[in-house]
Amino acid sequence: MKTDAAPTRGYSTDKKALDDRLRRIEGQVRGIQRMVEEDVYCIDVLTQVNSVVAALRAVGMGLLEGHVRHCVAGAIEHGTGEEKIEELLAAVARFSGR
Amino acid sequence: MKTDAAPTRGYSTDKKALDDRLRRIEGQVRGIQRMVEEDVYCIDVLTQVNSVVAALRAVGMGLLEGHVRHCVAGAIEHGTGEEKIEELLAAVARFSGR
Amino acid sequence: MKTDAAPTRGYSTDKKALDDRLRRIEGQVRGIQRMVEEDVYCIDVLTQVNSVVAALRAVGMGLLEGHVRHCVAGAIEHGTGEEKIEELLAAVARFSGR
Amino acid sequence: MKTDAAPTRGYSTDKKALDDRLRRIEGQVRGIQRMVEEDVYCIDVLTQVNSVVAALRAVGMGLLEGHVRHCVAGAIEHGTGEEKIEELLAAVARFSGR
Repeated sequence: MKTDAAPTRGYSTDKKALDDRLRRIEGQVRGIQRMVEEDVYCIDVLTQVNSVVAALRAVGMGLLEGHVRHCVAGAIEHGTGEEKIEELLAAVARFSGR
Repeated sequence: MKTDAAPTRGYSTDKKALDDRLRRIEGQVRGIQRMVEEDVYCIDVLTQVNSVVAALRAVGMGLLEGHVRHCVAGAIEHGTGEEKIEELLAAVARFSGR
Repeated sequence: MKTDAAPTRGYSTDKKALDDRLRRIEGQVRGIQRMVEEDVYCIDVLTQVNSVVAALRAVGMGLLEGHVRHCVAGAIEHGTGEEKIEELLAAVARFSGR
Repeated sequence: MKTDAAPTRGYSTDKKALDDRLRRIEGQVRGIQRMVEEDVYCIDVLTQVNSVVAALRAVGMGLLEGHVRHCVAGAIEHGTGEEKIEELLAAVARFSGR
């Protein structure tokens, strides 16, 4: 159980919404398992895979957004932004997939 | 209920392996839910999201591969490739995300 | 100078259109050089870079399309498709950036 | 000719290096035009297109980096970061291609 010592994260205010999205994504992945089990046509399975990728990328974009607004901006305001900026740029590079 | 009339799909020979990968991906998504529940640092959650995206893209690439090798090649050999090629190119365009 | 021995490529029928697109892309790249020279705002330069990436990806998609329709389909019809399919799948994997 | 009124951009300190990269990219695009002219094999042309895309994305990542380090961090320090953060997040979303 969480105590009030739980750290504040960029996603803290939207934690419920984020959790809902992740549960929906979990359900979509199970849906793909059923499609494979039922021998659904390859391209239709692929379409569903692409749809889950898009949903996960939207989650990733939301995490980046919360992170910039809270963690990075806060660190810069406190004069300790350098390390956070470094880390953010590495995260953006990985997120954009290169 | 499956009968022996189950259609052959591009992924039919690897169905067990594909199912295993999808179950692992489902487990990873649940892992992200736990990270959010436990207020794990944003960037670490994002790293895990990126990792699931990569796993799903590998699944998608495998589906495309089976589809080209079986469905598309078979249709071309039977002189009915045009529609399959059309569909394949649309799928590649969506898969590569543009 | 081209002779009539020039090999037929997947893009042969659209060679003029393809060349036009590449010249336009070259012009766009020179446009970005001028933006940098004139100290245009970073985000506006980035928007233009994204636009050239999109134009190049459309060229890439067109090359893939011609390749599948001509080279790959032709090889499969002649019973020598295996190597072409292998090569195509590797190209799709690289094109989709993973 | 630039005067000392030229605005400082995120890429100002690396302007020469950025210009060199863009000229190299322009040369690569002309190289692709020659490949098409000489009827080079589709997949080899595509490989070169992918290589230019990668070079442009590296330029884009450099622009984002300079922008965050200079423009965004500066705005946050001056208490006017909100609009810059909004704009940055939109740019990251477009750059990562979704």
